[in-house]
Amino acid sequence: RINGDRLWDSLMEMAKIGPGIAGGNNRQTLTDEDGEGRALFQSWCESAGAKMGVDEMGNMFATWGGTDPDALPVYVGSHLDTQPTGGKYDGVLGVLGGLEILRTLNDLDIKTKHPIVLTNWTNEEGTRFAPAMLASGVFAGMHTQEWAYDREDAEGKKFGAELERIGWKGDEKVGARKMHAFFELHIEQGPILEAEGKDIGVVTHGQGLSWTQITIIGKESHTGSTPMPMRKNAGLGMARVLELVDEIAWSHKPHAVGAAGHIDVYPNSRNVIPGKVVFTVDLRSPSLDVITDMEQRLQAGAQKICDEMGLEVSFEKVGGFDPVTFDEDCVNAVRNAAERMGYSHMNLISGAGHDACWINRMAPTAMVMCPCVDGLSHNEAEEISKEWATAGADVLMQAVVATAGI
Amino acid sequence: RINGDRLWDSLMEMAKIGPGIAGGNNRQTLTDEDGEGRALFQSWCESAGAKMGVDEMGNMFATWGGTDPDALPVYVGSHLDTQPTGGKYDGVLGVLGGLEILRTLNDLDIKTKHPIVLTNWTNEEGTRFAPAMLASGVFAGMHTQEWAYDREDAEGKKFGAELERIGWKGDEKVGARKMHAFFELHIEQGPILEAEGKDIGVVTHGQGLSWTQITIIGKESHTGSTPMPMRKNAGLGMARVLELVDEIAWSHKPHAVGAAGHIDVYPNSRNVIPGKVVFTVDLRSPSLDVITDMEQRLQAGAQKICDEMGLEVSFEKVGGFDPVTFDEDCVNAVRNAAERMGYSHMNLISGAGHDACWINRMAPTAMVMCPCVDGLSHNEAEEISKEWATAGADVLMQAVVATAGI
Ligand SMILES: NC(=O)NCCC(=O)O
Ligand SMILES: NC(=O)NCCC(=O)O
Repeated sequence: RINGDRLWDSLMEMAKIGPGIAGGNNRQTLTDEDGEGRALFQSWCESAGAKMGVDEMGNMFATWGGTDPDALPVYVGSHLDTQPTGGKYDGVLGVLGGLEILRTLNDLDIKTKHPIVLTNWTNEEGTRFAPAMLASGVFAGMHTQEWAYDREDAEGKKFGAELERIGWKGDEKVGARKMHAFFELHIEQGPILEAEGKDIGVVTHGQGLSWTQITIIGKESHTGSTPMPMRKNAGLGMARVLELVDEIAWSHKPHAVGAAGHIDVYPNSRNVIPGKVVFTVDLRSPSLDVITDMEQRLQAGAQKICDEMGLEVSFEKVGGFDPVTFDEDCVNAVRNAAERMGYSHMNLISGAGHDACWINRMAPTAMVMCPCVDGLSHNEAEEISKEWATAGADVLMQAVVATAGI
Repeated sequence: RINGDRLWDSLMEMAKIGPGIAGGNNRQTLTDEDGEGRALFQSWCESAGAKMGVDEMGNMFATWGGTDPDALPVYVGSHLDTQPTGGKYDGVLGVLGGLEILRTLNDLDIKTKHPIVLTNWTNEEGTRFAPAMLASGVFAGMHTQEWAYDREDAEGKKFGAELERIGWKGDEKVGARKMHAFFELHIEQGPILEAEGKDIGVVTHGQGLSWTQITIIGKESHTGSTPMPMRKNAGLGMARVLELVDEIAWSHKPHAVGAAGHIDVYPNSRNVIPGKVVFTVDLRSPSLDVITDMEQRLQAGAQKICDEMGLEVSFEKVGGFDPVTFDEDCVNAVRNAAERMGYSHMNLISGAGHDACWINRMAPTAMVMCPCVDGLSHNEAEEISKEWATAGADVLMQAVVATAGI
């Protein structure tokens, strides 16, 4: 069993870097704070006897042990970047839970046949640079590296330039590594495990995601002197599309969701009718058919709304992935680990996207989830208990060790 | 008659300061560009033989002539600040049209009995610092200077500090000046004059304005893993309120308008359900009863929407003024001037707020309007013809000279 106190101390230590304004974290990808977090993580890996490699996307790989020189490594990890108003556990638990495996195996002087590689994937959150899971996506061959380098944040800074700026562009070719398997521990970010009173979620599937960035063009004009019939109010058009998104998501109950988290209004002046609005609609479901249906209804419906209002509308897909079915053997390894250690567990569909969703396309992959209070995540108030974290890391270790062999 | 070519040249010269991105201007109040525009204006006033005074709100007063030492000055002017994506004429025509009066009277060697004071009011637009017409409001005793100094822009910079920073905080006490009358020339910013084929709008009234800043608090959470029934989506609440605003404005057809130009969403991340939205609703009508009714329905309706969605909502009035009836004598002076010079004219209710609306509370005031293409304003594509500008400045001069006496 892992050392829960040590894991917790490391979580609290990492949370000191890029503190938020309400008890959580703002350690967005490729900021100075991200660089600081990476340096701390590297020092911890090296103290645990692992050797760090960094690829050209900034993905970090700490290689530990392995008694069989021909055996492919078992990978384990998650991400250290956070939302702008994010929690202390989203991603971080999976990275430091993996670190805790190495520390525990060191304590017990256990060696595995396959090496273990502890990984921190760059830009999982996708807030600063869309899409989410960008660097694991390049690793898995879903995006080209050039395209990834070209992604821009809200200030027009590019991913590639920012990666160099913080000094974490490595020289390893991206995706060159071969994996025996990949395991990711993550908080659920939803309410099911807590509601069902289970310690562990055995993640069998991940729901798919579609991010459509919608631009509505109206006509900037004076809010006071432009008569109502002459207005082309892009903000009002957006309001109607937001209602439509909600209606579409509810129509596929209980297993679809939809919302817009990103909204920019131009010129954003109290007495100017919005001439342009750019916003991103996030639609998800475990069924690809449902996602396709929702996307089509969104585009057709938004087009109709805008046509009726004399507005122009355009659509750009800025992120997405199909629903995922994780590897049966890896999923079984997780379930068996929970069973063996006496933790209550249930099968789960991940509501969020994870680096594991991309890695699953190139290597046998599974995920372990632990509950979070009120299912709350992407909020500085995100909370878990030390017991939940410990159970999650215990199961992660058992699954990894069973797969890596002793 | 004024010199239309010279007026136009000055308009084009001023438009070079703080150019926009699409042919208009971004010379927002208390920016470096505002400072540059002021310096150019001061140099022009001094060349025309006027003496500049500046008050503690940065209002500029260039005093010219006056043969009767006991006669109170006739004031004329408007504002040089612009919207972030504003036009070249909104405000500027009123200031430089006033300057053209001085230049023309100099050319003709005409002296007036009452001095003429050419004025540039600070922060008319209200985009950077709400409310609009802030400095004429302090001048007219509607706000205290301390309160005005405390207004903050989106970056948290204060009006008072920014006024000092650009070096245009004068030492004259605000509102100490007494006026014989005030005249303001402005583009209509609406479509009526052009549609009716009239050269001149004789502004008899100004419609009232109410700015309500609405804050909706929901709960930040994950867009993927938060089930639909558990969401508290502040963005969706806002969408419903925006629909309500539109409905309320249409219910008072044809003479009420409503929209929200300012919308900020937090944390504005694609995969976070908005936990907070702040936006400003702009409601206007020539009738105070209608404005009051619209405000009440907005607050009651938004409260109901938010209650039903489990959202918190709060309201803050961040700007507003009651409908205005301009001074009969001054209005007649404008109408007589148009008549005498053979320009076609009609009575008009101003759809926008103007510094004249505040000054009207302390001195006899009227406005002259000229058409603008497609009624378009608060847009970089705002356009007028040289003929329209000339007619407006002609009428302004005749009204001012008739009131100032020869
Ligand atoms: N786990 C997580 O929040 N990942 C970001 C991608 C997503 O929005 O699902
Ligand atoms: N004229 C003008 O646009 N003034 C700003 C105040 C308002 O929004 O009416």
